[in-house]
Amino acid sequence: MSNEDVTNLTSRAACLAADLRDPLAGFHDEFALPDNLIYLDGNSLGARPKAAAARAREVVELEWGDDLISSWNTHDWFALPARIGEKISRLIGGDEGGCVATDTTSINIFKALAAALRLQRTRNPERRVIVSERENFPTDLYMVEGLVDMLGEVDGRAYELLLVDDEASLAAALNTSGASGVAAVLLTHVNYRTGAMWDMDRVTSLVHDAGALMIWDLCHSAGAVPVDLGRANADFAVGCTYKYLNGGPGSPAFIWAAARHLDRIEQPLSGWWGHRNPFEMAVSYEPAAGASRFLVGTQPILSLATMEVGIDLALRADQAELRRKSLALTSLFIRLVEDRLAGHPLTLVTPRAAELRGSHVSFRHPEGFAVMKALVARNVVGDYREPEVLRFGFAPLYNSYTDVWDAVETLRTVLEEELWRAPEYQQRGAVT
Amino acid sequence: MSNEDVTNLTSRAACLAADLRDPLAGFHDEFALPDNLIYLDGNSLGARPKAAAARAREVVELEWGDDLISSWNTHDWFALPARIGEKISRLIGGDEGGCVATDTTSINIFKALAAALRLQRTRNPERRVIVSERENFPTDLYMVEGLVDMLGEVDGRAYELLLVDDEASLAAALNTSGASGVAAVLLTHVNYRTGAMWDMDRVTSLVHDAGALMIWDLCHSAGAVPVDLGRANADFAVGCTYKYLNGGPGSPAFIWAAARHLDRIEQPLSGWWGHRNPFEMAVSYEPAAGASRFLVGTQPILSLATMEVGIDLALRADQAELRRKSLALTSLFIRLVEDRLAGHPLTLVTPRAAELRGSHVSFRHPEGFAVMKALVARNVVGDYREPEVLRFGFAPLYNSYTDVWDAVETLRTVLEEELWRAPEYQQRGAVT
Repeated sequence: MSNEDVTNLTSRAACLAADLRDPLAGFHDEFALPDNLIYLDGNSLGARPKAAAARAREVVELEWGDDLISSWNTHDWFALPARIGEKISRLIGGDEGGCVATDTTSINIFKALAAALRLQRTRNPERRVIVSERENFPTDLYMVEGLVDMLGEVDGRAYELLLVDDEASLAAALNTSGASGVAAVLLTHVNYRTGAMWDMDRVTSLVHDAGALMIWDLCHSAGAVPVDLGRANADFAVGCTYKYLNGGPGSPAFIWAAARHLDRIEQPLSGWWGHRNPFEMAVSYEPAAGASRFLVGTQPILSLATMEVGIDLALRADQAELRRKSLALTSLFIRLVEDRLAGHPLTLVTPRAAELRGSHVSFRHPEGFAVMKALVARNVVGDYREPEVLRFGFAPLYNSYTDVWDAVETLRTVLEEELWRAPEYQQRGAVT
Repeated sequence: MSNEDVTNLTSRAACLAADLRDPLAGFHDEFALPDNLIYLDGNSLGARPKAAAARAREVVELEWGDDLISSWNTHDWFALPARIGEKISRLIGGDEGGCVATDTTSINIFKALAAALRLQRTRNPERRVIVSERENFPTDLYMVEGLVDMLGEVDGRAYELLLVDDEASLAAALNTSGASGVAAVLLTHVNYRTGAMWDMDRVTSLVHDAGALMIWDLCHSAGAVPVDLGRANADFAVGCTYKYLNGGPGSPAFIWAAARHLDRIEQPLSGWWGHRNPFEMAVSYEPAAGASRFLVGTQPILSLATMEVGIDLALRADQAELRRKSLALTSLFIRLVEDRLAGHPLTLVTPRAAELRGSHVSFRHPEGFAVMKALVARNVVGDYREPEVLRFGFAPLYNSYTDVWDAVETLRTVLEEELWRAPEYQQRGAVT
């Protein structure tokens, strides 16, 4: 089903028929979704793969309970970050050995940025500017802030964070950031709020032309949007695994670096898991080869091992097919909302051009918060982001065309019957 | 059963009788230990509480699978780090609000040390020395190394790590560390290899007298040795939960700070979970109140929630009783090894004086590695640490006096029959 085909999906029956033709439809049964729930929040917390239950049980009861300490070797616990990192690397177009699954996205941003600045100290030692986007997910900016503040003055000059808004202002910043120049650029490939997607190849090239290093945050891309870090020639990448990779709540994040940098990477969180030989118990730190030097301390094995089930599922899906379906679902949703709810004050936040968006769609509505609460109460689960943004994530592995149809119909009921006016939806607090 | 009583435990029957009198004996049934296994490695990976299986299943199947995104609020996922931190704080004599469960010990060391150095920049800005112990667990030293290296020169002078060996050399370092002086001291309360324990109250006071800040690593103390950070007047503490707290493999660590510092703490890993209001999505970081400012990114909920079961068990045990039994077990082990294996080249590494040790006992043996492999093959699980060290952990919640007797008898068989000579035990690699 190509992107164009959705113009024909003008009835629920047509959506049902499209689901029957969907080459990815088989994946739906791999997930344990509650009946009658239309779950459009996989961009925040992915659904549970059915196999995750058995895997978690195995780790708790057999590996921890029965095999205890020996599991570090017999069940390969030590190797999990590199083994799962290897699989994630395949999903995002990375090289072998360039990725580990570990810690959180925030902490991995710190490591990647610290490593990038360190590399620049030998290449472009005068550079002190870190560029990011004003609309970035806040933690990305907070981590830059923490790092800049901690580094203080280096050779007499402090680092600074410069915020841009789009590719044009990024290009301007790269050219005119002053004598010191841009050391590194940190962007989130798909924006958490708007769903807008940067052109990874073009932006990376722009950044490199200016002599800066490029760090991509793939939180809203990995598993939903084809990513080819190798083709883009990216320097570093980080991302989470609990959204479209369905790794489980807060499952460990990943960090990747290009092969050309790996052996020269120094990062300040130099813990024993990143040591060349942790059990030598040497007094001094020596980094491991490859991406393992990004490891720090002992990883949460239960979360990490269970997460692998979601990664394995993602690896079975054809990435081009995934993107086709993702765009079909988001295109259908935009069209149905705009056609069938034309009289309501809904404003599309997400780019209308398919190639400019990821896998979620956001609309503004003046009563967005209450509208989302009313939707959730009717088993259509999206989420809400300040200000006024209704956000709907479409996970091509388990969402269907019928889900889109039914979600829009429920939204229509909520708006036409003004159900959002009910006092219980007006009360602020958590949406879900 | 007091420490003295073990002199009467001169037979297996006497040990069995002591187990019957043991006021903590009831805890054994709370753990799912394999039959016929004598598990003396709870100082590395604690045994699985039986209730952990049901809790993990609930988190995976009900909370993640059925309730999905709403679980962040309805199942209190957001509150887990503070809620569990609160419980840990009670175990270690901390104040309310001073502790969170999060990330890894290594990363928490980085945060605590960075925060301590930052505090000193307003109090004793000239100080540049960080003191630790040569025999510290390596990751503690590696994390200091990474931080020192990253900070580089601050106001024209770099930080440095100074290693001491004992309380006397610590005292000397505090007095004679040069014009700059000691900013912070990082010690592990109970040493991972030797089992030697610092006097927390006296050392903290010594460090404070010299104007330095004290950071305690409680990895080998929490849950096994009474810790009273408040009484000791400590500044910071970190520790893991997968040893004597039985939280599960790699379960998240904790970080604590004294109430007097909390509101002035700045730490560089300033992620959104540590923000005053994460969902405001503000562009600038503002730290949360209390220990929550030590939080960084989204936590591994499955590992974190399951871990709480172990913490709850630890809270049910009387700390004084725990210490009495721990010392009885370690004293008995030392005495039986020395009495019954007198002819073998075993050298006690752990302090003989009860008040100077934690809850594990180490002996050197020239063939330590092969001896431990032979023991493990006979279902007595301890572990091995370079060089030549046989390490046996005694977890007072689930180890018995009979375990001690049987472990020594197995060790006697291995040594007297020279079973360790078998080629399969001579081959290097993992012990377990």
